[in-house]
Amino acid sequence: MAESKKTGGAGLRGQVAGVTALCTVGQSGTGLTYRGYDISDLAEYAQFEEVAYLLLRGKLPNRQELDDYKKKLVGLRELPDALKSVLEHIPKDAHPMDVMRTGCSVLGNLETETDFSQQDDKIDRMLALFPTIITYWYRFAHEGIRIDTASDVDSIGGHFLELLHGKKPNELHERVMNVSLILYAEHEFNASTFAARVCASTLSDIHSCVTGAIGTLRGPLHGGANEAAMALIQKFKTPDEAEEGLMGMLERKEKIMGFGHAVYTESDPRNAIIKKWSEKLAEEVGDTVLYPVSVRCEEVMWREKKLFCNADFFHASAYHFMGIPTELFTPIFVMSRVSGWTAHVKEQRENNRIIRPSADYNGPEHSEWVPIEQRD
Amino acid sequence: MAESKKTGGAGLRGQVAGVTALCTVGQSGTGLTYRGYDISDLAEYAQFEEVAYLLLRGKLPNRQELDDYKKKLVGLRELPDALKSVLEHIPKDAHPMDVMRTGCSVLGNLETETDFSQQDDKIDRMLALFPTIITYWYRFAHEGIRIDTASDVDSIGGHFLELLHGKKPNELHERVMNVSLILYAEHEFNASTFAARVCASTLSDIHSCVTGAIGTLRGPLHGGANEAAMALIQKFKTPDEAEEGLMGMLERKEKIMGFGHAVYTESDPRNAIIKKWSEKLAEEVGDTVLYPVSVRCEEVMWREKKLFCNADFFHASAYHFMGIPTELFTPIFVMSRVSGWTAHVKEQRENNRIIRPSADYNGPEHSEWVPIEQRD
Repeated sequence: MAESKKTGGAGLRGQVAGVTALCTVGQSGTGLTYRGYDISDLAEYAQFEEVAYLLLRGKLPNRQELDDYKKKLVGLRELPDALKSVLEHIPKDAHPMDVMRTGCSVLGNLETETDFSQQDDKIDRMLALFPTIITYWYRFAHEGIRIDTASDVDSIGGHFLELLHGKKPNELHERVMNVSLILYAEHEFNASTFAARVCASTLSDIHSCVTGAIGTLRGPLHGGANEAAMALIQKFKTPDEAEEGLMGMLERKEKIMGFGHAVYTESDPRNAIIKKWSEKLAEEVGDTVLYPVSVRCEEVMWREKKLFCNADFFHASAYHFMGIPTELFTPIFVMSRVSGWTAHVKEQRENNRIIRPSADYNGPEHSEWVPIEQRD
Repeated sequence: MAESKKTGGAGLRGQVAGVTALCTVGQSGTGLTYRGYDISDLAEYAQFEEVAYLLLRGKLPNRQELDDYKKKLVGLRELPDALKSVLEHIPKDAHPMDVMRTGCSVLGNLETETDFSQQDDKIDRMLALFPTIITYWYRFAHEGIRIDTASDVDSIGGHFLELLHGKKPNELHERVMNVSLILYAEHEFNASTFAARVCASTLSDIHSCVTGAIGTLRGPLHGGANEAAMALIQKFKTPDEAEEGLMGMLERKEKIMGFGHAVYTESDPRNAIIKKWSEKLAEEVGDTVLYPVSVRCEEVMWREKKLFCNADFFHASAYHFMGIPTELFTPIFVMSRVSGWTAHVKEQRENNRIIRPSADYNGPEHSEWVPIEQRD
């Protein structure tokens, strides 16, 4: 069973920065719950839209509520013309997370939240539009085409795959996207969520909160781990080669991404779930390299370092098997986590105090002013 | 003498979240120092570019270094065409802080920081370009003209005034802008700076850090106070009317912006400085209303509530006397504080640990999964 690490000191580790009813990390038997629901139940039985509803509205929807909610989201997929134009101005070699950050920020200019009573509508619009933003830019920048942003697929994950590939995804792929979006939806006071809450605490608007969170998730110590895991496993052609390569990296003390976690100590409850789906996808595409290589990496890291795979590691192969370019892995994280970020913003707004910590000062006590002509 | 408040609990108030050598707030005699230099010395003797250099490079520049630095900044004022085009797509009724946030984010797409060795150049570019971004958008949106972004004025504050008004500012106005930018440059772990450090702690890029900080500053509990102060003083035609109005607001327990501070207890050291300059500007324009009204507000708030003016209050009248539209007050704050934000980002990167606090959980302990058809 995973337990929270007890640590103190730098990075506010172990320090309580607020209250939440959204999530426990490492506190229950399986280690991760959203509003008390076990992540394995959610990943097995729920739809991502159902989980977003749970996080944002506080309860699981009944059939009518879920149908209405999905219908609403499908109706919000159209990009404003000004946003299309901005996306067309962003070069092909831009960082896709910069595109997401900018897309969200521009949306805030065009459809500004002028009153907190609008927050649910603004949030739903982001949930519906983020897959469109990233795929519209990606295909325009890489293929020079302006895609049709409508699709018949009524799930957010399926919509993303259809826009990316220009064809309806099969049932397995839509299912795996659904599971993936559920696994990434929420994770308590991680850095990007905390950034969103700091922003919300000044009573800023919802697009500012999410824009800041996207920029924070962009960092390689946070959202970039699944891309780094992909880069790792692609280096190896066989499990034996992976074992040899990893042992060398460990000896040279190189950083290996996709393993261990700031809060979990013994396992990441999301790993077993996405690993199972990665295996199914490997079977479907007839993979004999990436999945076995990933499994060997997992074995070696546990044997040598007692480090377990986190949520990101088997996501790499799973996304790859579905034909998703590596550089879009972290934007998918955004499409999912926006549900958790905005649920935290709502919570922060309900019981707000501006987040304004103190600092330890280690600079000069007193510096005497020296006129410029007398300086060295 | 001002002293730090000792408080605990919500909003991380009084909790140490990191180390800095950049600033003390409420710890020295006059209450505010940048790298040990007293704010009143800096505001009296320094140029804003000199203060930015101090914050970002760790020491006051000598004459040659300052000349080189200012020359470099003047050379970085040209907007990329793609950014111009994006700004032209942002509607007139957009929130100017959304424009700043988006301008910064787009810049990150066009001139991405791909390695931290580039950080100083990227920071200088933002310092040089932010006045251009806001004035280019403002005059295009409001007057339909594409301004020439070059000017002979070699100060950032003067450049802003020239682009805004289309003519070279007089010496007094350039001086007041300089003082204002110095006063707002840095303020320890305020919410926007802290948001920048949270972002930096994931090792994200500099534009993400600043974009997030702008969004955080946008909130009315943080950057919006000088605009709110303007709205307040403009309500009154005489000091007596202001007194009567304020007494009524106090009786009705309405929120009055521009007074008191999260950290200072007895005075904000920046107030006396900007107040003096506001008085000079009032004389220059022959004002007999806004300045006396502001002075009376200060007297009443102190007498009735022992609340002092913070940095924002007399900034409102000062900016107004220089013909700056109220909605551009907070973007000026951005033009200044970007120096402090980025100095903090550099500091965070030098000794980094990801900022990932904990939360107190107050949600349901365990929720049993209920199939959708059985839900209420």
